[in-house]
Amino acid sequence: MGDNQYSMPDVSTNEPSSERTTVRRLPKRAVYGRAQIDAILDEGLICHVGFIADGLPFVIPTGYVRVESQIYFHGSAASRMIRVLALGADVCVTVTLLDGLILARSAFHHSMNYRSVVILGKPRLVTDSIEKLVALRSFTNKVARDRWDEVRQPNEQEMKATSVIVLQLTEASAKVRQGPPVDDEVDYAVPVWAGVAPLKTRVGLLEPDDRLVQGIAEFDPARLTCFR
Amino acid sequence: MGDNQYSMPDVSTNEPSSERTTVRRLPKRAVYGRAQIDAILDEGLICHVGFIADGLPFVIPTGYVRVESQIYFHGSAASRMIRVLALGADVCVTVTLLDGLILARSAFHHSMNYRSVVILGKPRLVTDSIEKLVALRSFTNKVARDRWDEVRQPNEQEMKATSVIVLQLTEASAKVRQGPPVDDEVDYAVPVWAGVAPLKTRVGLLEPDDRLVQGIAEFDPARLTCFR
Repeated sequence: MGDNQYSMPDVSTNEPSSERTTVRRLPKRAVYGRAQIDAILDEGLICHVGFIADGLPFVIPTGYVRVESQIYFHGSAASRMIRVLALGADVCVTVTLLDGLILARSAFHHSMNYRSVVILGKPRLVTDSIEKLVALRSFTNKVARDRWDEVRQPNEQEMKATSVIVLQLTEASAKVRQGPPVDDEVDYAVPVWAGVAPLKTRVGLLEPDDRLVQGIAEFDPARLTCFR
Repeated sequence: MGDNQYSMPDVSTNEPSSERTTVRRLPKRAVYGRAQIDAILDEGLICHVGFIADGLPFVIPTGYVRVESQIYFHGSAASRMIRVLALGADVCVTVTLLDGLILARSAFHHSMNYRSVVILGKPRLVTDSIEKLVALRSFTNKVARDRWDEVRQPNEQEMKATSVIVLQLTEASAKVRQGPPVDDEVDYAVPVWAGVAPLKTRVGLLEPDDRLVQGIAEFDPARLTCFR
């Protein structure tokens, strides 16, 4: 992200998984370790899916879930994105978590703290009905722990209307910027406030639906696993 | 986003700006009004830039700023993204604000509240030095009001190392999902909590840099214009 110089992220990296996922810009920020990639993917809710249709690039936001060494996302079988991806077209899926704003002493060194993962590959349409059901359960339970078991599960018509796409994490890399501003040495004398404005996404007061069945217990927001 | 059925967003829409930015999936969610598009763009800090390089799609997160009818973003003149975009390649820039989690009574109708903008077009490298400086000032002042005037401004070397890209909002559309879950009528009898978990990104306690000049006034977080 951005064009500036940055501090070294405090991570133990290892080797990139392929030539084309090698981070070229600011390689000192690159993170290729699966544990850290998984942690970023498990904290994010939205990915941005990039694909080519009619020779043009498209970027569509959608939910996803990681299950072991792959991510799943879903959509209407009728959507352009799903139709293109179901054919195994090349895709780039990016997840970005914004952690803070960096206020430096120079305009040039303003930046952001973030963690992002980029996954390249050719996705596959999930056709096995068990795999599809397991993916949808994982998807629902990622949003809220154990949610799948308490709600009405998909019927045949809904299953037919929903396509599930899977993408292996074989070619994935992460990029992380952490820590305070890094200014040019001479600029530390500039008399201006500098530091980090940390950002955090929080769950607000839950808004119960107007038509809840009488006597339903309150929902425990601690079950929203991405926001602990 | 997603595959489900949704409530109608409460917006006054008008005509799409081009055939290819016409929202095809769930057209009832489409918003083409510039005021609403601008409001989403001005609240977001990060866009996801989609482009094609060596025949493959790439999606890269980066900061941006809207100025009137265009957005600017910047990067190192040496980055792959900037090199491709400076040539006027087709681009898709997507901004997504996640506003809430929708807990429905059926797995199928789980969803998210969000506002997103998709911009298509061919960007242009900013070569005019005044336009470039104005763009960088807008960029810095978007993060923190009036920041540009109090920090050390870019020197010649920094200006040279930074490329600024501009993209017109001619082909832009927005998609919005708001409001409570929308369940199948029969499912309103399912005895489970349903509703919205609203999400909000907040600024945490500011973290002053260790090397501040003595006597520097505290930074007023109200200046972080995207988080009021």
